[in-house]
Amino acid sequence: MKEKPLILITNDDGIRAEGIHCLADAVAGLGDVMVVGPDSPRSGGSASITCTEILRPRRLADYNGAEMWELNGTPADCIKLALNVLVPRRPALVLSGINHGSNTGNSVVYSGTMGAALEGCMQGVDSIGFSLVTHRPTAVDFEACMPHVRRMAEEVLAHGLPKGVCLNVNMPKGGRILGLKRARACKGHWSEEFAEYTNPSGKKFYLLTGRYVNEEPESTDTDLYWISQGYAAVVATVPDRDYAGKLPFSI
Amino acid sequence: MKEKPLILITNDDGIRAEGIHCLADAVAGLGDVMVVGPDSPRSGGSASITCTEILRPRRLADYNGAEMWELNGTPADCIKLALNVLVPRRPALVLSGINHGSNTGNSVVYSGTMGAALEGCMQGVDSIGFSLVTHRPTAVDFEACMPHVRRMAEEVLAHGLPKGVCLNVNMPKGGRILGLKRARACKGHWSEEFAEYTNPSGKKFYLLTGRYVNEEPESTDTDLYWISQGYAAVVATVPDRDYAGKLPFSI
Repeated sequence: MKEKPLILITNDDGIRAEGIHCLADAVAGLGDVMVVGPDSPRSGGSASITCTEILRPRRLADYNGAEMWELNGTPADCIKLALNVLVPRRPALVLSGINHGSNTGNSVVYSGTMGAALEGCMQGVDSIGFSLVTHRPTAVDFEACMPHVRRMAEEVLAHGLPKGVCLNVNMPKGGRILGLKRARACKGHWSEEFAEYTNPSGKKFYLLTGRYVNEEPESTDTDLYWISQGYAAVVATVPDRDYAGKLPFSI
Repeated sequence: MKEKPLILITNDDGIRAEGIHCLADAVAGLGDVMVVGPDSPRSGGSASITCTEILRPRRLADYNGAEMWELNGTPADCIKLALNVLVPRRPALVLSGINHGSNTGNSVVYSGTMGAALEGCMQGVDSIGFSLVTHRPTAVDFEACMPHVRRMAEEVLAHGLPKGVCLNVNMPKGGRILGLKRARACKGHWSEEFAEYTNPSGKKFYLLTGRYVNEEPESTDTDLYWISQGYAAVVATVPDRDYAGKLPFSI
């Protein structure tokens, strides 16, 4: 009998988040599932790793047939430690999410969810990050995401991904998702990024905020476009960032 | 009289590190210099940002004509807050480093130094990250780096960079650097990544460690090759990670 594929799951909202449990539910039965999640929320953590602190994995009670672990580390740490220490065999798939919030456009640069997917990809394991595009990090409804998450996992388990490529799947909130669409990351930037506060002694403090400005609102092939149309957007992403073009000076 | 260019500097080793002071020294006189550095080391912090905590910038004493600030945030936070709140005018250049350690190969994914350079780049400012390839984070000699750092800053101030491209400059340790060479990031991976410890009650702990495995030791155009030859390696890097190729299934 063929060995079941091992599916390794993490996220950046922490092991107690609803999204990571929904992800485990969505792929239940497709293989053996191991979940290794951060012990606290790590949103905006990008692909950060813990270089100088001791990492302490802790086994939790199983959830829906999945082996559950929490780690005092980042999403990328979870993947590194799982692959090097915790897994019984090499996973066929790394999944990250379901993130409580958007990872569209250039947000992928800051995303802990995608940091874990990039880590899996660099370790040579097919990897997918999933996010639900919402500005309400709690009380979100992941139900509509489940069949699309499962379908993506099935496709990648069956066909694999090109070497060095992972997927960033963003799903719209609301009652129904019309389907999956391949897209590219929308070009844009964040504006009005800091809220300013002044304490009683006149000292100023700042909180990162702002809104994402879509720099190509007319384009009909971006993640933001397809999400606005009710579809889940699938962006293929690479860890490699080399620019091979010419520079305007000689060195 | 033409206004002097403003040069914004940060790093990931923290505002007290020697490398950030050497960077300020290296570009002294090329423009007005503002330094905004993390209040503690942030190595391995990638492009992480602080989403839920209040940021508190604090003015320090000037250093070699440069305005100095510390921030309880990440390197990318330093650039975001500086550009949105602290700078008197738009910088002509963002510099990050000089990092105490290597950011060659795929280490750029984890690098806080390059996280700041990517942030500057995404904000539309020409940006360069500098690193000294050493495994001794203290007591390093940055002296040989200084003229090469200055030359790169001068070139980019004079000619600019292509839109959406920043530079990752890694410099060899030792008494002399033979020059600057354009390179590409060496393909490789980290192996034997965790040291295992057991406490008296039998519980296991882990510390991230390991070594970088060069997967193309014969190549003569990579950053690791040129560094081994005594040159500083200049890799051009983009925040955009979209993969436009085909996927092996239809969605």
